[in-house]
Amino acid sequence: MKKLVLLRHGESIWNKENRFTGWTDVDLTPKGLKEAQNAGRLLREHGFIFDQAYTSVLKRAIRTLWVTLDEMDQMWIPVHLSWRLNERHYGALQGLNKAETATKYGDEQVLVWRRSYDIQPPALTINDDRYPGNDLRYKELANQDIPLTECLKDTVIRFLPYWNDVIAPQVQSGSRVIITAHGNSLRALVKYLDGIPDQEILNCNIPTGVPLVYELDDHLKPIRNYYLGNPLEIQEAMQAMTNQGKSKI
Amino acid sequence: MKKLVLLRHGESIWNKENRFTGWTDVDLTPKGLKEAQNAGRLLREHGFIFDQAYTSVLKRAIRTLWVTLDEMDQMWIPVHLSWRLNERHYGALQGLNKAETATKYGDEQVLVWRRSYDIQPPALTINDDRYPGNDLRYKELANQDIPLTECLKDTVIRFLPYWNDVIAPQVQSGSRVIITAHGNSLRALVKYLDGIPDQEILNCNIPTGVPLVYELDDHLKPIRNYYLGNPLEIQEAMQAMTNQGKSKI
Repeated sequence: MKKLVLLRHGESIWNKENRFTGWTDVDLTPKGLKEAQNAGRLLREHGFIFDQAYTSVLKRAIRTLWVTLDEMDQMWIPVHLSWRLNERHYGALQGLNKAETATKYGDEQVLVWRRSYDIQPPALTINDDRYPGNDLRYKELANQDIPLTECLKDTVIRFLPYWNDVIAPQVQSGSRVIITAHGNSLRALVKYLDGIPDQEILNCNIPTGVPLVYELDDHLKPIRNYYLGNPLEIQEAMQAMTNQGKSKI
Repeated sequence: MKKLVLLRHGESIWNKENRFTGWTDVDLTPKGLKEAQNAGRLLREHGFIFDQAYTSVLKRAIRTLWVTLDEMDQMWIPVHLSWRLNERHYGALQGLNKAETATKYGDEQVLVWRRSYDIQPPALTINDDRYPGNDLRYKELANQDIPLTECLKDTVIRFLPYWNDVIAPQVQSGSRVIITAHGNSLRALVKYLDGIPDQEILNCNIPTGVPLVYELDDHLKPIRNYYLGNPLEIQEAMQAMTNQGKSKI
């Protein structure tokens, strides 16, 4: 039996400001830092040890991982970073807050972008300051891999090769793996592992800072999964996520 | 012309307590953290950008690197960890402070261990709690690679393969590299790069937390090297190192 731990980064500054973040590299809030510490403490108390860690190239996920490993006294394990674990790219919505978005595009349109699996928000142009191709960390990417916008389906498509080619073989060979990433890149993995249909995956809300443990068989089929921590607190965190989904666009 | 940056970790708890540290995994002091932040600030102000980072598997070096990269807004670069960048292993002296060591072994003997290039301090036994073979992070090492004690010559011998096989090819191919490590693993590299004779390398004291920049030709021969920062402060830091060497064993 293999174990795999998924961890969504703690609260970021733009989570708090209710802005579309996507690939914008905003940091954790003090609350987000505490969530990461708490995740590390839980993993340590439950006797988890990791051989490999995977995260995105965005600091809110990297810092969540660093703080978690620090808390576990496992700072010395290899950390692998990939843009394929980044949050969904929100295109021209990145940086806008709820009110701005509704004013600019109308409530109904925004609801479509939020609720659909395969409809992209408006794209960036390559002249936009937010175009990832201007950022050093993406300089090795082929042009066609640099997103101008993404629907969740696009995130799934660019995430899966990294799972199949890099992470899954590690898990299969017995490495104990933690993946610290984002709401939508983790959704992509959960969708794949559990075979969740396109439209249902949008109802799957992974709470921030709560380790999600998957037990997998030798073919990496899930046997069961569970959150670490106090069930009541987790329920509250999940409810908060769902409410955030409702009040936020 | 290639550039390579060496950075010695900031003050650790046992530096402060005047204990032989070696492979013991002690953390930075608040002063050590500040030194790391200062190093990151200096590198940022001088326009340094890195493609790859290398460090040991000891948290005082890893944390120094993390804090430096954080300060430079470069948390997303690949970090490679290796036991070959660890501090010199101090054998049975690890954990002892100056007074304890002098009482146990005599002043003259301790002077020999401190001053000689190729005389090892007393070795650990494999039953000793301090034996690295009991530590998960060294579980991939062959038995003959796990040190029971090291003189500086031993540190040079186990460090050089990592330089030649891993780091040097990266530098040669144009990667901009930072190495965050320890007094003696960095001495090993400086000895090799500058061709310093065995007995002279012990007089080479690299101050903690001050980026040491090497400019190298295409064959990785040094053209020149210099410290970043205020020359007066660096001179003071180097003097402090030398004095520490004198008053410490």
